[in-house]
Parts: sequence; structure tokens; C-alpha cells
Amino acid sequence: MAKILTGIQSTGTPHLGNMLGAIIPAIEMANSSKEESYLFIANMHSLTQIKDHTVLKENTFLTAATWLAFGLDPKKSCFFRQSDVPEVAELAWYLSCFFPYQRLKLAHSFKDKADNLKDVNSGLFSYPMLMSADILIYDANIVPVGKDQLQHLEMTRDVAARFNNLMGDTFVIPDAKIQDDTNYIIGTDGEKMSKSKSNIIDIFLDDKKLRKQIMKIKTQSLSLEEPKNPDQCNVFKLFKVIASAEDVKKLRSRYTNGGIGYGEAKEILYNEILNRFSTNRESFFELTNNRDKVENLLLEGAEKARKQAQNVLKRVRSRVGF
Amino acid sequence: MAKILTGIQSTGTPHLGNMLGAIIPAIEMANSSKEESYLFIANMHSLTQIKDHTVLKENTFLTAATWLAFGLDPKKSCFFRQSDVPEVAELAWYLSCFFPYQRLKLAHSFKDKADNLKDVNSGLFSYPMLMSADILIYDANIVPVGKDQLQHLEMTRDVAARFNNLMGDTFVIPDAKIQDDTNYIIGTDGEKMSKSKSNIIDIFLDDKKLRKQIMKIKTQSLSLEEPKNPDQCNVFKLFKVIASAEDVKKLRSRYTNGGIGYGEAKEILYNEILNRFSTNRESFFELTNNRDKVENLLLEGAEKARKQAQNVLKRVRSRVGF
Repeated sequence: MAKILTGIQSTGTPHLGNMLGAIIPAIEMANSSKEESYLFIANMHSLTQIKDHTVLKENTFLTAATWLAFGLDPKKSCFFRQSDVPEVAELAWYLSCFFPYQRLKLAHSFKDKADNLKDVNSGLFSYPMLMSADILIYDANIVPVGKDQLQHLEMTRDVAARFNNLMGDTFVIPDAKIQDDTNYIIGTDGEKMSKSKSNIIDIFLDDKKLRKQIMKIKTQSLSLEEPKNPDQCNVFKLFKVIASAEDVKKLRSRYTNGGIGYGEAKEILYNEILNRFSTNRESFFELTNNRDKVENLLLEGAEKARKQAQNVLKRVRSRVGF
Repeated sequence: MAKILTGIQSTGTPHLGNMLGAIIPAIEMANSSKEESYLFIANMHSLTQIKDHTVLKENTFLTAATWLAFGLDPKKSCFFRQSDVPEVAELAWYLSCFFPYQRLKLAHSFKDKADNLKDVNSGLFSYPMLMSADILIYDANIVPVGKDQLQHLEMTRDVAARFNNLMGDTFVIPDAKIQDDTNYIIGTDGEKMSKSKSNIIDIFLDDKKLRKQIMKIKTQSLSLEEPKNPDQCNVFKLFKVIASAEDVKKLRSRYTNGGIGYGEAKEILYNEILNRFSTNRESFFELTNNRDKVENLLLEGAEKARKQAQNVLKRVRSRVGF
């Protein structure tokens, strides 16, 4: 049985774009797959960007609650926090002794971050070694990645091969499963939804605040009567990725016929969001009132993951002479 | 009670230069001090340079046996292997998230190594973070360092202060105790004794091999009768750092008077080494025949060190929100 490993970012709280673009597809894959799934919240990685322990804790909780509210089955998948398996940091050190400094310097993602972030710390630079450890410590076979993460996975394969080559067969060499970026979700301003652009829709807000976010969506300024091109309207674009094919068709013809105003369209989108995500919202609100449940699930997952990690680490330690 | 922490290199087997220049003074300090001493063999660091697990293991053992043979008292000092407290790697990750990449790039020792070593790996680059963790994880107050390590200790103080500043008081800021390099010991070619120059004297060789090393010492080619300047003779220079003041005085006058050949001088040095280090040699040979004893002492030390490390790490984890 192959092992699929997914690292989950926790630098921000998940929004609708994350849900539709990444979380829902990943959960569908994990729940339906015959393979063994490992999913972890990369909170040790988040420390490169977040230096406030309340925020870091809260993001981790909200991320976990979101995945659970979207139906991730912790009985089927091993779901845990990275920081509960600190063995990865030890493995990251060993790996870094086998990876050329000059290659690490070539990482695109570090260059991007170094150009855009204020806090360019050494952790950001050596992060590909931690990511490699995250993957190799579970003998993962398959790692679903976006195109932006493909180079990191190449580094993982490279360092694993270098280690195997010098010290004897030790690591499983993982394969990338490239995720198409077809699930590009726009935010309230029509740009890609992203926390940094302040254009997100947070479906776990209470009804009033959620409605306010929807009402903020930027539109053209055509009158109610005028026919409108639905494919140029941000409200319709969002509706399209949420609603059923039939409802999308209906709304499309109302746009092209004219007679629908932006206010009404937004109201329709808002109700569709409430409708589509009602179970998830209920489940999320329940989890926020029952934080211990989330905590315990994560600890159970970590216990299982840690055993696996310790096995692999033991193998590595004996290879290096410790 | 202040804590003194000493990291012991294990990239090579200790030679006479290490013993006279570093090991004997450190052991005298540890055994006579009223302070608490931690001494660890930095074998996780050695992995940056040694990729052969038999060599790495053997170097670690020989290093431990040397320190014990020179009288390090493991009841008085906490003596252990770095790899038995792998928590340092976890702390190194946290620290690296608080240390600017641009400052790490300024490390002299990495530049030197990058210029001179073939294997310039990422571990060499991020090593100052591991060294910082080694120090901070024991709440060390005083770290004896050579001038070449002073910059690393400055980085340790810096990252500790940055962390304390952002996350609240967490780390003890350690002070450097600069070791004079007065104990400059020459090798058989008159240059500073160093494994890389193949000019070492290994006092733990058997008598015959040791004698051969001594006989290799480079000298001038003056005849037996001629008076000689002792301060220009490598044999005398080595004798001077080993023998008693009285014996040094005697040999000095034999040099200046003439009538002593280099062969005889080497014989005198050889006998002085056997004499001066007889107890150490006996003790070392006993330990090499009793490896379990060394192993158990190191494990006992690690148990004590690890408890301390886990306490500090717990403090750090709670600060970062884990």
C-alpha cells in the first residue's frame, strides 16, 4: 500500500479559496483512496513567518477544525501537527549534511520570499531540508504538490538519493503528484483569493459578517435592467464554482436576459454559500466549542505518526553511526 | 552556580597537540572548578565532514576515551555525546526562525570551510544555529572558546537576545571565556600540530610506532659536537612543553654546550613522553579493552543532560505556541 503525504500550511486561517482549491480535493482523495494517507499541519514551518504564539496556536486549531469540518476522516487518515513529531528537526539536520549548500541557494521559493518578506530568517533558507525530512521520515511514496512546490520535492528526491548512495539504502524516494491549478478561486476584488490581498471570503464567519463580505464583492455598474455578461462578473464566477450545474444555468440566463441587479445576485450567492456549506459550518462551530476534541484527535494522529517517524529515524541513526 | 559548557570536536582522533593545547587545560578547569561543567562530544557536527559511520563512531569513542584517560571526572562533570540529546536539532530549527539569513551568511568559519573543503553542505552553513542550540539548551552561563569560535558565540548571544526580545524572557545569555592560544604545539615538521598536515604525535600508539613518530621530527643537520640553539630545535620545543622545568634546564645546557646529537635528543623526548603520559596511556589502553564502560558513562551523562535539555525545550515550545 502506497503512502500519500500532504503538508498543510497554517500561516493563515483557511478561506473559501483554500477550501475549494485544496482542502476539498485533498479530503476527497484521502477518504476515497485505497492508499494510506498522512496529513500534517506544518506549524513548525509557520514559525518562519509567525512570531506570535497565540496566532500560531489559533491558526493551527482553525486549520485542523476546517479539515475536520470538511469531512477528513481521522480514522482513515493519519492527521497530526508537525510539532508533535519533533523528530523531523533531527532528520532535517542529518539531511542538511548531505545536501550541497550551492543547491539550496538555488531554491526559487526562498528567492521569492527573500524579495517579498520583511523577516528573511535562516529557517526560511533551510526550510527545504525540513520539508524533505517531513516526507522521508514517513517513507512517503506519493506527495501531491502544486507546481510551486515541485522544486522542493526534487530537492527531497535528490537528498534522499545522495544519502542512499553514500550510506546505503535508507530512504524511500518519493514521487510528486502534480496538482493542477485549475481550482483558481477569485476573491472579492476579482484577483486570486489570498489573505495577503484582504479579498477573502471566510465561510466560518457568523451570518451577518459573512453577508457583509459577500456584499463587498466588486462588480461593474450596469443598471438592473441591462443584460450582463456572467463570465465577466465576480459574483457569478464565485457562484459557478459552488452551485449545482442546474442552478448555474438558471443564473446564467437571468444575467444574459437582464433584469437582475448585483444586490440580488450577491444575495443569491450568499444563500448558496449558507446552503452548500451548512453542514461544514455546523460542524466547524461545534468543534470551536469543543476544542479538546480537536486536540485529542491530533494527539492520537501524532502518536501513530511518531512511531513511524521513530522507526525511520532509528534506521538513519544507525546509518550515520549514532 | 554557573554552568560551563564545552563542546569537543570529534572530526579526528585527538593528538598530542589537542591534549596539551585543549584537553588538559579543560579537564583541569572542570575538575577544579566550583561551577557545574557540561562537556559534550560534538558528533552531530562531525557529520558535516565525515560520511563514514565506522570512522564517526570510532572517532567519538577515541575522543571520549582520551578525555577519560586524562582524568575527566564524569561524576563531577556531565560528559556526553551530542547525538544522545537530539533535542538540540529541534531547538536549532526554532532558533533559525529567529536569526537573519544575512547574518548567518557573514560567518567567517563557513567562508573558510567553503574555500577549503570539497563537501560544502548545507549543514556546514547552518551549523552556528546547532551550536547556539547546544549552548542555550543547557542554560549555559560560560562557554570557553578559542578566538576562531568567538563569532559563533556572538551569534548565539544574538539569537538568544532576539528570541527573548520577541517571545519573552526564555534563554540565559551566555558569556564567552576566551582561551588564549598560548598552547600552540608544533608537530613533527615544526608547523602547528594538525591531523590535516600529517605531522601529529599520537601518544596512544604502541611504543614502537610512537618512537617512529618521534624519530620523524625534522631537525637541522648540525654534527653531534656542535653547540645548538635549543629554541630553534623542534625536538627541544616539544620537550619544553612536556618535561619539568629542571629537566628542561638540563637539556638546554646540553644543547648550548654541544655534544648531544639529534638521535639522542629524540630518544630523551620519547622517554619523557612515555614517562609523563604513562598513567594516561595505561588508562587509555584499559578503556579500549573495555568499550562498554565508556559507552555506559556517556549514556549516564546523556541522561542527566537530556533532562536539562527537555526542561529548556519545554519552555521554548510553550513560548512559540507548541
